[in-house]
Amino acid sequence: MSATPPGRLMSGEMAEQPAVLRRLLTEGAPRIRDVAARIAARRPRFVLLTARGTSDNAALYAKYLIEIVLGKPCGLTSMSTTTAYGATPDLTDCLVVAVSQSGGSPDLVASTTAARAAGAVTLAVTNNGDSPLVRAAEFHIDVLAGPERALPATKTYTAELLALYLLVQGLRGADGAPAAGRLPGLAEAVLARRDEIRRLAARYRFAQRMVLTSRGYGYPTAKEAALKLMETSYIPALSYSGADLLHGPLAMVDNVSPVIAVVPDGRGGTALRPVLDRLRERGADLVVIGPEAAVAAASAGFALPTGGVPEELQPVLEILPLQRLAYEVTLARGQDPDAPRALAKITETS
Amino acid sequence: MSATPPGRLMSGEMAEQPAVLRRLLTEGAPRIRDVAARIAARRPRFVLLTARGTSDNAALYAKYLIEIVLGKPCGLTSMSTTTAYGATPDLTDCLVVAVSQSGGSPDLVASTTAARAAGAVTLAVTNNGDSPLVRAAEFHIDVLAGPERALPATKTYTAELLALYLLVQGLRGADGAPAAGRLPGLAEAVLARRDEIRRLAARYRFAQRMVLTSRGYGYPTAKEAALKLMETSYIPALSYSGADLLHGPLAMVDNVSPVIAVVPDGRGGTALRPVLDRLRERGADLVVIGPEAAVAAASAGFALPTGGVPEELQPVLEILPLQRLAYEVTLARGQDPDAPRALAKITETS
Repeated sequence: MSATPPGRLMSGEMAEQPAVLRRLLTEGAPRIRDVAARIAARRPRFVLLTARGTSDNAALYAKYLIEIVLGKPCGLTSMSTTTAYGATPDLTDCLVVAVSQSGGSPDLVASTTAARAAGAVTLAVTNNGDSPLVRAAEFHIDVLAGPERALPATKTYTAELLALYLLVQGLRGADGAPAAGRLPGLAEAVLARRDEIRRLAARYRFAQRMVLTSRGYGYPTAKEAALKLMETSYIPALSYSGADLLHGPLAMVDNVSPVIAVVPDGRGGTALRPVLDRLRERGADLVVIGPEAAVAAASAGFALPTGGVPEELQPVLEILPLQRLAYEVTLARGQDPDAPRALAKITETS
Repeated sequence: MSATPPGRLMSGEMAEQPAVLRRLLTEGAPRIRDVAARIAARRPRFVLLTARGTSDNAALYAKYLIEIVLGKPCGLTSMSTTTAYGATPDLTDCLVVAVSQSGGSPDLVASTTAARAAGAVTLAVTNNGDSPLVRAAEFHIDVLAGPERALPATKTYTAELLALYLLVQGLRGADGAPAAGRLPGLAEAVLARRDEIRRLAARYRFAQRMVLTSRGYGYPTAKEAALKLMETSYIPALSYSGADLLHGPLAMVDNVSPVIAVVPDGRGGTALRPVLDRLRERGADLVVIGPEAAVAAASAGFALPTGGVPEELQPVLEILPLQRLAYEVTLARGQDPDAPRALAKITETS
C-alpha cells in the first residue's frame, strides 16, 4: 500500500458508487424483492436491526424507513445483551436484520445465531455472500458493492442504504427500483464536483472538533459523516439529531465550533429549521449539505441536486460530498485516508 | 441565581441523591410495583422507549434491563418518525415508555399520544405528576426526586434509573427493592469522596476533548457522563460502546486524548477488557471508574464500592463520581455549572 499515493483506494471506491448503485438496481433488485416477499409471507410484526460502525448507520436509516414507510415498530439491538449477558428474549414474530460489510464480525454472527434460535426470522445484509453471517441467517441479501479494500467504508455504505430501501419497499409489496432510478446519475454529478469539496475542506484544516447535525432521514448521514471524519482525519466529530443538540450539547457550540448540518429536502429539513436558527444565533460556523436555499442561508455549503428524488432516498446522495470531505480534510492534514491508524477491516469484538 | 456561588444548585441536588433513592425505595416502590402488575396483565410483547437528553440515557439503561432481565425485544424510538413524518405504526402488543424529567416536551407528548392511539400500552416515567405527558399516557410512575432547579439533570437521572429498575422487576412479578436496598448508603459513601474527584478534575483543566467508553450496563453511564461534561464544561466529550470504539473512532485516540472508561463489576467489565488493552497499547490516558483492580491497571481512577450490588444496579452508583467530575471540571475552568449557556430546562422541539 505504501507504493500507492495516499487515499488512492478510498478515492477509487468512492468513484465506483454510481456503478454500484446501478448494479444494485438492475441485478440486485429482483433478488431483493424475492427475498422481501418470502420474509413478508412470514408476517413479522417487529423488526430488530443489528450492526456496528458504518453498517450501524445504514441500519439506523432502515429504522426510519421501517417505522415510517412500513409502519412497524423497530429497534436497534445492543449486541452485548446477547454476547456478554446471554439474554434470550422471545423473538417470535420478529424480523432480525444483521447488516455487515464483511459478514465476519464474531459478535454479529453470535447474536444472529441466537436470534434465529429464539424464533426470529433472520436476514443478513452483507457485501460478502460467502461469510459466516450469511451461513448463520435464514435469508441473505448481497449489496453487490464488490471488494472494498480501503479501511474507511464508502461504497458499501451507499450500497447498504439502497439495498435496505429496496428491502423495505419489497416488504410492503412495492418495487423500490423506479423511484431510485435517478440515483446513479445524480451520484455521478455530485462526485464530479471535487473542487467544491476541496475548497470546503480547507476550512477544516485546523479544526479541533466538529459537530454534525440533522433530523429524520438525514440523521444517519450526520452520524456516518462524523464517523468517516473521525476515522480518517482523527478530528473529534460529534453527531446529534437536531432535537438532541438542543438538550445540552448546544452549550458546546460557539463561534469557533464548526457545525455541518445535513438538511433533507423535505420534512426532516423543515423540522431542522429552528435548530439552524439557534445555531446561527450562537454564531456557529454553519456549513449546510442540502437544498440551495438552505446553503445560501449558511456560512457555506454544498447544494445537493435531489432532482425530485424522494426524501427517503436522499441519504444515498447526502453522504457522497461528506465522504469526499473526510478524504480531502485528511489529505490536507498530511495523513493517508486509506490507512487510518488502529483500524482493522473486520473488527473482532465478542 | 447570580447572588449564589457558582454550581450551588447542582451541588445541592447531587447531594440529595441518597435521600431520593431512599424515598423511591420506600414510598415509590409499592406504587411502581402496582403499576407494573397492571401493565404486565396486558401482556406486552415488545417495548419501545422514548426520551431525550439525560432521560434518553436512562431509557437506554432500561433497554438493557428489558432485553436481559425481562427477555423482551426492545427499541428506542426516533420521535421524528411520528412528529415530523407522521408515521403510524401498528403498536398492538407494544408497551411504550416515555421517560422525561419535566413531562413537558411537546414532541414527547405528541409521540405518546400517537402511540396510545396506535394501540400501545403507554407509560410516563416523570418527575412531575402534573404534566402534559402524564395526562397523555395511560399509566404513570413518579420518580419522586423533588423539584430540580439546576439545568444539568442529576438527581432525576439516578431516580429514573432506579424507578426503571423497579418497573422492570415488577413487570416480571418480582420486587426489586431488596436488591437495591444498599444503594442509598453506598451513594452517600461515594458522594463523600469529593477530594478525590477534585484531584481527578485537575487532569482535565485544559482538555480539549474527551472520550468515554463502557460496555453493557455501563454504556448508558458513559453516555450520560459525556452529556454532563459537555453541557457544563463545554468540553467535547464523545461516548462509544467499547465495541463501537474499535470500529473507527479508536483512530482518534492517542497519548493526548483522555479516555474515561466505566468498568462494570461483572460481565460488562469483562467484555470491556480487550478494549482497555487496546487503549493502553495506544498510550491513551486512561481513567477508570470501577473495581479497584481495574483502577490500579489504569492511569488513574475512582474505585467504586459496589458492595455486592448486582451489576444491573451499579449504574446508579457509577454516574455519581462522573456528575461530580463534570461539576468540578466546570468550576476549575471558571464557569458556572448551574447556568450552562444555551440550555433550557424544558426543550421545546416538535
